[in-house]
Amino acid sequence: MNKKKIPSKHTDEIQLRALKLDLLSINQATLPPDVTLESAIKIIAKKEIGGIAVWRDKLLDCGVTQARSLLQEHDLVVTGLCRAGMFCGEEAGGSKSKSWDQMIDDNFAAIDEAAEINAQVLIIVAGGIRTGEKDLSAARTFVADGLHVILERARDRGVILAIEPLHPVYCANRSVVSTMKQALDLCDVLGSGIGVAVDAYHTWWDPDLHAQIIRAGPERLLAFHICDWLRDTRDPLLDRGMMGDGVIDLQKMRGWMEAAGYSGLCEVEIFSERNWWQRRPQDVVDVCADRFLGDC
Amino acid sequence: MNKKKIPSKHTDEIQLRALKLDLLSINQATLPPDVTLESAIKIIAKKEIGGIAVWRDKLLDCGVTQARSLLQEHDLVVTGLCRAGMFCGEEAGGSKSKSWDQMIDDNFAAIDEAAEINAQVLIIVAGGIRTGEKDLSAARTFVADGLHVILERARDRGVILAIEPLHPVYCANRSVVSTMKQALDLCDVLGSGIGVAVDAYHTWWDPDLHAQIIRAGPERLLAFHICDWLRDTRDPLLDRGMMGDGVIDLQKMRGWMEAAGYSGLCEVEIFSERNWWQRRPQDVVDVCADRFLGDC
Repeated sequence: MNKKKIPSKHTDEIQLRALKLDLLSINQATLPPDVTLESAIKIIAKKEIGGIAVWRDKLLDCGVTQARSLLQEHDLVVTGLCRAGMFCGEEAGGSKSKSWDQMIDDNFAAIDEAAEINAQVLIIVAGGIRTGEKDLSAARTFVADGLHVILERARDRGVILAIEPLHPVYCANRSVVSTMKQALDLCDVLGSGIGVAVDAYHTWWDPDLHAQIIRAGPERLLAFHICDWLRDTRDPLLDRGMMGDGVIDLQKMRGWMEAAGYSGLCEVEIFSERNWWQRRPQDVVDVCADRFLGDC
Repeated sequence: MNKKKIPSKHTDEIQLRALKLDLLSINQATLPPDVTLESAIKIIAKKEIGGIAVWRDKLLDCGVTQARSLLQEHDLVVTGLCRAGMFCGEEAGGSKSKSWDQMIDDNFAAIDEAAEINAQVLIIVAGGIRTGEKDLSAARTFVADGLHVILERARDRGVILAIEPLHPVYCANRSVVSTMKQALDLCDVLGSGIGVAVDAYHTWWDPDLHAQIIRAGPERLLAFHICDWLRDTRDPLLDRGMMGDGVIDLQKMRGWMEAAGYSGLCEVEIFSERNWWQRRPQDVVDVCADRFLGDC
């Protein structure tokens, strides 16, 4: 008897689980901050999870060439490189500000890195309002201008840009692009080679979300980030919840994404200083996999 | 010579300042939490500020009849009574939940109190999602149903309801009505006797804000709350900024309101645990007045 042809129920379940885990990606920011990229790759690959999203600081610590070969060796899809953008020239906190040219150069470097590691997208976080200023509409114009400049370079390098609208709570210092509609309006002006990363945490509240996912369609839906919003959270920066622990109906949102033509991976991105970052990275990855199979 | 007919420049400035302060209101939540309503009324009136917004817990501590006579005696406009709504039947924190009937009764009591103290509006905070649930669209339906019920009573008592869309950061546990557009869509269905309270803190980020203010017009623009969003705030609940200390262009927003026909007072509402609540209430009121005259 050929076991492969008539598998037991148990074997079926294992195969189905493996197929499903192929659709899961872990954003490295979900693991405690001291975990290196090499270590993250090994932990995620050992669990037979399909993908990883990489942060630039960890990538540079590892070395781009070394990271590229580790990712290939472990057969991981790179669902995104985090992150470029920040067109106001300041990181959140506002301690250090860059000139326009420095900011564009930094974006070009990110594009090169994304090409090197074959990232499916380079995540664009628009940036906030410069410290001491109040002109929101000028800040939004900077974003449009900056994207126009870097998109040329991205197209040349074969890198796809994904604008990630961030929750309006970050409008002041991280992203003046707060909604899917704004991001898609930008894409309409900019043309090909750019789309959106839909993050459940940032978009779940938006009454216009479903309509904008439909509007985006397969061409513009480039990434899907999952986690949960804890009902009584007091820290919207570093207190994200694991799927299933909060108020977001992730099954419904994933259904909207897939019905609109999204066929990529679901990437878990959880910043959680007080909870998940306090655990062993292997344990966090185990829980991500279990919750993904159960709650998403 | 009649001084009243030919006032000195100095007297002109004093009169102008007094006229402008007539357009200012202080929400009691701007003062440290231990300040009684009676004390707040006296401090605000002494500064010759035009109005106050009252919170129900302080009102009940004072006694409604006593509050009514104090407000009349000091000739203060009551720009709002905070607050009714919470149609999910839970306050933020989720520790105590009410049945539908209990929640409606509580709204009826708030309507009666608003009538007693002659509040220009009763502020409606929609409420979030019940603890343990994930159905955002059901939560929004509760709000529409609840408003329908209480609006009848409000009309009977001559009380105007003002839906205050809260920042999306509060969507889970305080208000599933996050945008002006949502609030105005509700008003369109509900008819007369209801409009919106526009709070700068909650709405400044919204790319659709100006268009929705125009849409609302004088009939629906019932209150204007001001404060500021601190660029790098980490606590969106209790770390609001004084006008001028953050990223909001309040002059522009006030211009939009007035151009759209709003002729009411500007109400300062600042929850600030670490800064303004640590100061003497008289000093906070002084700063509110100075900033209002300079930055708004």
